[in-house]
Amino acid sequence: MAINELKSDILHEVILRRPDDSHKGDFGRVLLIGGSMQYGGAILMAGQASVGAGAGLTTVATDKVNLTALHTRTPEAMFLDWRDDDQLLTNIEKSDVIVIGPGLGVDQQALHLVKLVFKAVTNKHILVVDGSALTVMADNHLTFPRSAFTIATPHQMEWARLSGIQLNYQTEHQLNEVQRQILNLDVLVLKQHHTLIYAENVLHQLMIGGAYQATGGMGDVLAGIIGGFVGQFKQNHLKATEAAVYAHSIIAQEMAVHSYVVKPSFIADAISNYMSRIQSNL
Amino acid sequence: MAINELKSDILHEVILRRPDDSHKGDFGRVLLIGGSMQYGGAILMAGQASVGAGAGLTTVATDKVNLTALHTRTPEAMFLDWRDDDQLLTNIEKSDVIVIGPGLGVDQQALHLVKLVFKAVTNKHILVVDGSALTVMADNHLTFPRSAFTIATPHQMEWARLSGIQLNYQTEHQLNEVQRQILNLDVLVLKQHHTLIYAENVLHQLMIGGAYQATGGMGDVLAGIIGGFVGQFKQNHLKATEAAVYAHSIIAQEMAVHSYVVKPSFIADAISNYMSRIQSNL
Amino acid sequence: MAINELKSDILHEVILRRPDDSHKGDFGRVLLIGGSMQYGGAILMAGQASVGAGAGLTTVATDKVNLTALHTRTPEAMFLDWRDDDQLLTNIEKSDVIVIGPGLGVDQQALHLVKLVFKAVTNKHILVVDGSALTVMADNHLTFPRSAFTIATPHQMEWARLSGIQLNYQTEHQLNEVQRQILNLDVLVLKQHHTLIYAENVLHQLMIGGAYQATGGMGDVLAGIIGGFVGQFKQNHLKATEAAVYAHSIIAQEMAVHSYVVKPSFIADAISNYMSRIQSNL
Amino acid sequence: MAINELKSDILHEVILRRPDDSHKGDFGRVLLIGGSMQYGGAILMAGQASVGAGAGLTTVATDKVNLTALHTRTPEAMFLDWRDDDQLLTNIEKSDVIVIGPGLGVDQQALHLVKLVFKAVTNKHILVVDGSALTVMADNHLTFPRSAFTIATPHQMEWARLSGIQLNYQTEHQLNEVQRQILNLDVLVLKQHHTLIYAENVLHQLMIGGAYQATGGMGDVLAGIIGGFVGQFKQNHLKATEAAVYAHSIIAQEMAVHSYVVKPSFIADAISNYMSRIQSNL
Repeated sequence: MAINELKSDILHEVILRRPDDSHKGDFGRVLLIGGSMQYGGAILMAGQASVGAGAGLTTVATDKVNLTALHTRTPEAMFLDWRDDDQLLTNIEKSDVIVIGPGLGVDQQALHLVKLVFKAVTNKHILVVDGSALTVMADNHLTFPRSAFTIATPHQMEWARLSGIQLNYQTEHQLNEVQRQILNLDVLVLKQHHTLIYAENVLHQLMIGGAYQATGGMGDVLAGIIGGFVGQFKQNHLKATEAAVYAHSIIAQEMAVHSYVVKPSFIADAISNYMSRIQSNL
Repeated sequence: MAINELKSDILHEVILRRPDDSHKGDFGRVLLIGGSMQYGGAILMAGQASVGAGAGLTTVATDKVNLTALHTRTPEAMFLDWRDDDQLLTNIEKSDVIVIGPGLGVDQQALHLVKLVFKAVTNKHILVVDGSALTVMADNHLTFPRSAFTIATPHQMEWARLSGIQLNYQTEHQLNEVQRQILNLDVLVLKQHHTLIYAENVLHQLMIGGAYQATGGMGDVLAGIIGGFVGQFKQNHLKATEAAVYAHSIIAQEMAVHSYVVKPSFIADAISNYMSRIQSNL
Repeated sequence: MAINELKSDILHEVILRRPDDSHKGDFGRVLLIGGSMQYGGAILMAGQASVGAGAGLTTVATDKVNLTALHTRTPEAMFLDWRDDDQLLTNIEKSDVIVIGPGLGVDQQALHLVKLVFKAVTNKHILVVDGSALTVMADNHLTFPRSAFTIATPHQMEWARLSGIQLNYQTEHQLNEVQRQILNLDVLVLKQHHTLIYAENVLHQLMIGGAYQATGGMGDVLAGIIGGFVGQFKQNHLKATEAAVYAHSIIAQEMAVHSYVVKPSFIADAISNYMSRIQSNL
Repeated sequence: MAINELKSDILHEVILRRPDDSHKGDFGRVLLIGGSMQYGGAILMAGQASVGAGAGLTTVATDKVNLTALHTRTPEAMFLDWRDDDQLLTNIEKSDVIVIGPGLGVDQQALHLVKLVFKAVTNKHILVVDGSALTVMADNHLTFPRSAFTIATPHQMEWARLSGIQLNYQTEHQLNEVQRQILNLDVLVLKQHHTLIYAENVLHQLMIGGAYQATGGMGDVLAGIIGGFVGQFKQNHLKATEAAVYAHSIIAQEMAVHSYVVKPSFIADAISNYMSRIQSNL
């Protein structure tokens, strides 16, 4: 398998100026699920990133303890109590994109939510599975649903648990690709220094970014940006995902000029400004 | 009916420098009602917009769960528990402007509040009805109160539910105008790409703004700015409303140079600065 | 009585560069008491202003519901549950300055706190009485304590209730001065367009500021700045108060160039920067 | 004992550019414990400082009441309920650095936590003991654990209580050094005007900083920066601590040009930017 470098062209290809006569419903209803008591910040940052990236409507389903922090940080996002199955199911049905995982935890409630979502999604949904949702899957031998267009964003350790491919074999791309297919995964974003993206006939590598991104929460923001991008840029889910991956790291790279480490929440705040610069270059 | 373009003159006509010897009571007591557990961010943004737009005193009546986020974001606003009817009635009596609807929801409590407000307002009040309050009205066949000066701010779907005029007929202005009168509405702000404003002998259209505004919360901020404007610019309620509509979109348009999507809460923050520039041009 | 204009000299006289070998204990322990469920934002802004103005240690005693908003906005401030009399008394004893009133409300708890504070303060304390604490006093025929150095900051209506001097007589300065003395008040800051300051042999008037300050919360921030100033600039309590009054309005005046209304919380944020500019001019 | 001035070289020696192929686990798991109901802001600022300084993963163990303020301010940090001993022990085991003390208070829970931590740490841990944890130790005649590399950051009064050395003798460096050894302390950061650092064969003094730092919370932020630095700059714990002490005050000194007092939380926000400037000079 040949590896091709993911280049900035992807941004220009994906981030198009919005048509004048459009409304918020046109830009995706994104539902993000995660945020236990311990890891609430993760889903807060993912939701903030979804709003910042331009999702038409963003809803965050999380533990009730996170309600106030959500609305204080990002009043544009709506809230759902993640213990309310009925509301969750209603909301999933209305959503275009489901992001599950940031700060989800690995307890019974986390397992319940992963199962509920995997069962409820249909072929009209795009599903992004991130963070502890992947650990929950590995621990409970779950597979991705066949119905939705599914994107997973493991870092290497999570991929090891899920795919059975050990860290030292993860550079053998054929193995990763086979496992992607076996797991019913449409797009695999394997996060590492120089992240890899696997999809049908695609093996792309991100050559930008750096160690200033090595801080907790970085992946949560990526998941949120992916959610926002696939929700609004609908022509091609793979390309929208790749644009999100590229944008996330190029923004970090720019910020690193003035920050020894880049706060993930700052990327979530900066995404809309970066997108306006891309759009202007058209 | 001839459509006239709403132009920037409206800002200069309405936003006058404040007289030196004035105090907060002169600039309107604005009460905003909304914000269920699920949609709390909406009323938070509306309240923030009312404060930013210069209301003399802003009070937010909402679910208790929103207290902390309100005070953290906008300590200038006061809080009311929306389940306390006595306090609500006392506060309505003291208020000049009531904004009901942002994030209100459509449950029994929402219906109760709409009924309570519609019954309590008098001809000294200005009433702004927005968002889910309009859905509650449609679902329950309520009409606007005759007593107060009433402004409604539906987007097209909400107007369809309320007026019975389907989306494809909404460009037939005569129909909208007749329904406005039948519904006892003094001003109808019909939100769409190029928003329309209907009032006695008036049909104005906003020709600025764009798809960067197509994101959740945009209407909530507009409702708050209208509240702030009609509360403090008292000569002409229609013109104050029009100035609010114009200011809301011109600020978004300016921000869109640097933002692919414009966060509604950013408009709420920017309004006072924008108003100072208008005022300086006098 | 001759009225003298309060001029910017007062800032240079009061705001001196801090001696090198000093520590936080040298700059005042300020305790601010207020913030009912309805008016929590007021005490949050006062506390923020005290911290910003440079109080060595700031503690906010308020309703428990305000804890999270306090720490989110101003983590430098400490919290006290205002229903815990023992802790309140311990803290009052350790404090140099007590500010009571911002958002206090007028219920039984408010009355209880006013009485408790008035009884507990001694001649080592500086007491600032603001906002609804003044209404509570008027409603309950309370007088200021003789023990502490006492500063009151009523606006005209509050002064009318407290002093019995009606609004139309408030320009008769002899009356105000007599009432100040009868009420055991060391400094009376009578807030109005061109605020007046009465003290022993002093009648000063502020000639700066404007109607951009006519918004809820403006007085709460002033109370907090006074608290911070009298706590750290100890040579002369009257002059420290006057410097606070002047600084509060000159900052607002500067901000008004870019803001139609000036958010009180913005003044609380800007005070330390303004003070650095004064200090640099020495 | 000769005193040597701590100079800016220490920053360049410690703050190295991160190796490209690294991940968050390489930069330290820092657990910060503190924040009672009354003093919650202290641990919030310490956690914010740890994240800002570049700790790979930051967890804050505190009272449940501080959860929302933590996530609102610093969503990058994780939360632990400090009453959950099991989770605390699990987390301590996984952590590289434990910071205990900011806003801890001196009650039974504080004592319990100090004992629990002192018992649980091993020689793989770096332990930073700050603020009220030092008072708890003095009150209960506790000694530092022999196992971990231990850094204490008392101000002079706390050192008096802990070491028995009175304020007027604290300039007798031999006494401080002997007590450091007797107390099993690897590094003593004695905070005062011109802070002293004692370690094996080391007596360094900080000659920068000033009275603009004399405000509540300054030490909490220092504790957090030390935590972040020793977690990620692992070659030399003493030097990492010294770099933290130097960076904390040089940032304050820079900010003091524009601030009469420097808000501790602003230093926590600025640290990453300052570190990027150091790194660029290499």
